[in-house]
Amino acid sequence: MRPPLYIFRVKELLYEGKSKQVYKSDRAHEYILKFKNSATAFNAQKKAEFEGKGRLNQAIATMLFQYLEKNGVKSHFIESLDETHMRVQAVTIIPVEVVVRNRAAGSLIKRVGIEEKTVLNPPLVEFFFKNDALGDPHISEDHIYLMKWATPEDVKILRSRALEINQLLKDLFDSAGLILADFKLEFGKNHTGEILLSDEISPDGCRLWDKKTQEVLDKDRFRKDLGDLVQGYQKVYDQLKKQLTLS
Amino acid sequence: MRPPLYIFRVKELLYEGKSKQVYKSDRAHEYILKFKNSATAFNAQKKAEFEGKGRLNQAIATMLFQYLEKNGVKSHFIESLDETHMRVQAVTIIPVEVVVRNRAAGSLIKRVGIEEKTVLNPPLVEFFFKNDALGDPHISEDHIYLMKWATPEDVKILRSRALEINQLLKDLFDSAGLILADFKLEFGKNHTGEILLSDEISPDGCRLWDKKTQEVLDKDRFRKDLGDLVQGYQKVYDQLKKQLTLS
Repeated sequence: MRPPLYIFRVKELLYEGKSKQVYKSDRAHEYILKFKNSATAFNAQKKAEFEGKGRLNQAIATMLFQYLEKNGVKSHFIESLDETHMRVQAVTIIPVEVVVRNRAAGSLIKRVGIEEKTVLNPPLVEFFFKNDALGDPHISEDHIYLMKWATPEDVKILRSRALEINQLLKDLFDSAGLILADFKLEFGKNHTGEILLSDEISPDGCRLWDKKTQEVLDKDRFRKDLGDLVQGYQKVYDQLKKQLTLS
Repeated sequence: MRPPLYIFRVKELLYEGKSKQVYKSDRAHEYILKFKNSATAFNAQKKAEFEGKGRLNQAIATMLFQYLEKNGVKSHFIESLDETHMRVQAVTIIPVEVVVRNRAAGSLIKRVGIEEKTVLNPPLVEFFFKNDALGDPHISEDHIYLMKWATPEDVKILRSRALEINQLLKDLFDSAGLILADFKLEFGKNHTGEILLSDEISPDGCRLWDKKTQEVLDKDRFRKDLGDLVQGYQKVYDQLKKQLTLS
């Protein structure tokens, strides 16, 4: 890894999430993200610490943001600072989580009664209200407009950007021997009003299955007690790293 | 009430819902509905019987279907047969419940964190998967297309029909001294493939508040133990009847 462009200093903690902290930076229009080792599930009813998770998620998110940037997708990512810190553009997060699904899993099964692992082609886009107190409820575009969380023009961008990112990531993971079943994205607006992919992309917010063995390598290992979480994330990191080094 | 066109006979029970039974009729392409006295809430975790509820709902639904028909909205309604039975066109129900909201109440409050009674203008349209076993989950149009429950053309019709019905009912209830906060509609296709308003419109599936006193007159009396259910439904019936007789 090339050395960071500057010796970073975190300043005021702006926001503490379930798996990350967001700090003010000493540079204008920038934040510093700190990836944590904690994991939560079922609306934070289940919690644990995993030594090494923050480091792996930072490394995976860095690889994925760089890969997306190379392929024309702008994100808040500027550079990796150290094993758990990331320099990003300051954005105001749009409080709408965008989920893209290529295979049926998780809440979708209980919502529509579809069989687990069913291939979804075209991929399905879902929206959730990013609100821990309410348990991140499922919403429609009509709710987004009612609450003025985003305009119809913004939602059109979120939807098309999410599907574009899905195609890129699905192909990348596929070539790395992994099935990208689904994943969650967040978007934000920077100080110029530009919509940027934000937050992180990591096994915390993706479902990733080994193509050959169908082994679950994401946070479902923790949700469903399917095995050591960090081992799963390490596999994702190793296979991605290998693929990205090759290509 | 004019006498029914024929002495009806119910045949095979086709479907038993929480508040109605659907019977085969001896006429082609027709069903007979029987309105029950039972009420359920919270996905049938709370249940009770209310003497007179079936009769009141049948009478209210009859008035509303006739009022909508006069105003150009087609439904499955053919005629009232007796106090609790109704003759309807046979339809295949589209398994999507359409909810229209003029005021914030119920599940919307927990979904988006809006204050109760907030006026929603334009009205909000929501979709739910009609499935008792799954608890009638909230869905988006994308889920409807994924599961092929209806086509985009069908959903366009559901949405515009629901908003048209809302405008008519909102005005009617307003002139009867009542606020129509929200209501649920179901639609079905008859044997020619025509989409018809189906099921019932009654205080079981509406939120109705007294304009002056804000008294709750619908099934929330049962859900939230706000007073005698049948007394509320009777008030709705009386005020509607008076208004429709006047106009």
